[in-house]
Amino acid sequence: MSPVSSRAQPSADLVQGVLAGNRLLLARTISRVENQEQDAQSILSALYTHTGRAHIIGVTGAPGTGKSTLVTVLAQGYRRAGQSVGVVAIDPTSPFTGGALLGDRVRMRALAGDPGVFVRSMATRGSLGGLSKTTGDVVTVLDAAGFDRIIVETVGVGQAEVEIASTAHTTLVVEAPGLGDDVQAIKAGIFEIADILVVNKADRPGLDRTLQALEMMLDIEGNGPRYVRHHGQLLRVEAPPDDDEHERWQVRVMQTVATVGTGVEELRQQIEAHRTWLLDSGEMAVREQLRVANTLENIIRAELNRRILASMPANGMDDMVEAICRRQSDPYSAAQALLARV
Amino acid sequence: MSPVSSRAQPSADLVQGVLAGNRLLLARTISRVENQEQDAQSILSALYTHTGRAHIIGVTGAPGTGKSTLVTVLAQGYRRAGQSVGVVAIDPTSPFTGGALLGDRVRMRALAGDPGVFVRSMATRGSLGGLSKTTGDVVTVLDAAGFDRIIVETVGVGQAEVEIASTAHTTLVVEAPGLGDDVQAIKAGIFEIADILVVNKADRPGLDRTLQALEMMLDIEGNGPRYVRHHGQLLRVEAPPDDDEHERWQVRVMQTVATVGTGVEELRQQIEAHRTWLLDSGEMAVREQLRVANTLENIIRAELNRRILASMPANGMDDMVEAICRRQSDPYSAAQALLARV
Repeated sequence: MSPVSSRAQPSADLVQGVLAGNRLLLARTISRVENQEQDAQSILSALYTHTGRAHIIGVTGAPGTGKSTLVTVLAQGYRRAGQSVGVVAIDPTSPFTGGALLGDRVRMRALAGDPGVFVRSMATRGSLGGLSKTTGDVVTVLDAAGFDRIIVETVGVGQAEVEIASTAHTTLVVEAPGLGDDVQAIKAGIFEIADILVVNKADRPGLDRTLQALEMMLDIEGNGPRYVRHHGQLLRVEAPPDDDEHERWQVRVMQTVATVGTGVEELRQQIEAHRTWLLDSGEMAVREQLRVANTLENIIRAELNRRILASMPANGMDDMVEAICRRQSDPYSAAQALLARV
Repeated sequence: MSPVSSRAQPSADLVQGVLAGNRLLLARTISRVENQEQDAQSILSALYTHTGRAHIIGVTGAPGTGKSTLVTVLAQGYRRAGQSVGVVAIDPTSPFTGGALLGDRVRMRALAGDPGVFVRSMATRGSLGGLSKTTGDVVTVLDAAGFDRIIVETVGVGQAEVEIASTAHTTLVVEAPGLGDDVQAIKAGIFEIADILVVNKADRPGLDRTLQALEMMLDIEGNGPRYVRHHGQLLRVEAPPDDDEHERWQVRVMQTVATVGTGVEELRQQIEAHRTWLLDSGEMAVREQLRVANTLENIIRAELNRRILASMPANGMDDMVEAICRRQSDPYSAAQALLARV
C-alpha cells in the first residue's frame, strides 16, 4: 500500500485498508463515517458484505455503575482468550463544546498500545435520529475490520441508548448497589432488554438489597413469568411451553468488582455461553433480522433529516419564526407550509 | 357547555374548554395531542395564538438528585404565592410495557386535589423525534389554558432531554452530593445550560466537595469566563464588555433539602428574579425565538417520520431485510432504494 498522507484518501484505499487490518486507515475510515462525509455511504456499502462475523455485545446501565471500567477489564479478558476487541463508547456531550465529556484519553487507558484492541468514543451531540445510525456505521466498520468481539457501551437512560444496546447480540445491563430511587426505576426500564444482569461494585454496602430486588424481578427461583424475544417483540411467557425444542435462555445475575477484576472472567464466560445459545437455538438469525431492520430504519431516518435540513431556506425559516413570535402564525401551520415547499 | 360524554368530542369544544379552564376537557385535549390523533394539529394551531403568557421552567439533572420532590415543593410554593402551575414530567419508559415507570400516581401526590395545579407524566417511549415535539405540544396546551408557571421536568442525561430543558425560559440543573464520577461528567454537560444551579439533598455528606466543584466551574468569585446565550448559541465571554447596557445574569448555586422544604422559597425567588431579568434585558425575546425555532424543527422532524413510516410497504421491507441478512444487499443501498420509491 502506498504511503498515507493525502487528506483526501480515495474511498477504495480506505476500504482495502480496513479489510487488511491497517489501523491508521481504520481510524480514518471511522472518522469519515462519523462526519458523514460524501463517500461515507459507498464505503459502508462496500464494507457491509464483509460483516457478520463479529459478536456484538451491548453494555448499558445508569450513570455511576462503573460501566467503563467493566468494559475495559472485559476487553482485557477477551485479549487473554486470544480474541480481538473493538469498543464503541457513547459519551454524554457537552452542549457548549459539542465534544464528548470523557473521551478515549480518560477512559480505557489500560487498553492503549494493544494492536488487538480498538477504542472509539462517540459523542451524543445531535443525537436526534443520528446517534443510532452513526453507532451502527462504526460497528459495521469494526466488524468488517475483523474484530472478533465488539462492545458498545451506552449510558442507559434515554430510549435511544436503550435501542442501541438492544440491537446487540448480547445485552448486559449493569447495576450497582446503593443508587437512588429513580435510578431503580430506570433500571426496571432497561432490565427487560437484558440477556445478562451485572451487579458491579458488588463489594459495596446495599448489595443484598439490590440482588433481592433483581431476583424478585427475574423470579429466578420459581417457574414464573419469563420474557423472551420473538420476532422483534418482547413477549411474556407465563410458563415454559411443553414443546420446547431447545432450552430457553435464562437471565442470570452476575456479580463483579471491575476495579479489581473479581467476577469478570465468569461474566465473560456467561457472554460466550449466551453466544453459543444464540447459535444453537436459531435465535441468532432472529436477532440479526432485528438488527438489520433497525439499521435500515436508522439510515432512512437520518437521510430524511439530512434532506429536510438541506432543502430548508434559512431566511424563510427566520421570517416564519418572527411571525410565530408575534403570534401572527403558529408553528403547526408554518411546519405544514414549509413541508409543502420541499 | 354541554355535558361531556362522547368519546369523539369535537375539536372546537376542546379548544373552548381549554381556554375556559375546564379541567376535564384540558386532560382530554392533552391526551388527544399526546396520542397524535387526527385533529391534534388543528387544536394546537387554534390554541397557539392564546399562548405566550406562561413562564416555562425547565428542571433537569441526573437520576437520584430528587428532582420530583423539588418540583412538587416548588409548585406548592407557587400556589402559596397565588400562581397556578402546570407540571410536565418526562419519565423513563419500560421498553416492555411502553408505559411510564413512575407516573402521576407515585409522584407529586401532594399536589392532588388542587385545581390550580395540573400534573402530566409523559413516557419517553418512541422518543426518536417525537418526545421533544409532544412535550412542546403539551406545554402549548397548558400555556393556552392559562397556567402562570409551567415546570418541565426531565432526566438530564440524553441529549434530547437536555434540548427540552433548553427550550425553557429558565433552566434549573439539579445536583446532589455524593453521586458517582460519571454522574459528575454528565453534570458538566448539562451545567452549561443552567440559569440556576441547585444542590438538592444539601444535608448529605459530600456537600462541600460538590459546592467546590460547581463553584470552580462557575468561577463565581473571579471575573473569569462567563457563558451567555446569543442568538441561539452559547458563547464564552472572557470578560464583561465595557458597553454593557444591562447587567449580565449571574448563575448562582442554590442549596435545597426538598424533602423538608429548606431553601425552596429562596430558589423560587431566584427563578422569579431570572424571569424579571429576562424581561428587563430583552433576553426574553431571544429565548422566545429559540423556543419557536426549536418547536418548528421538532414538528417538521416528527411529521417527516410519520410520513416515511406511513409510506413504507411492510412486505417490501421484510424482503430487503432478508436479502441484507444473506449479505446479498446492504442496508445503505437498500435505504436509497426505499427512499427513491417514496
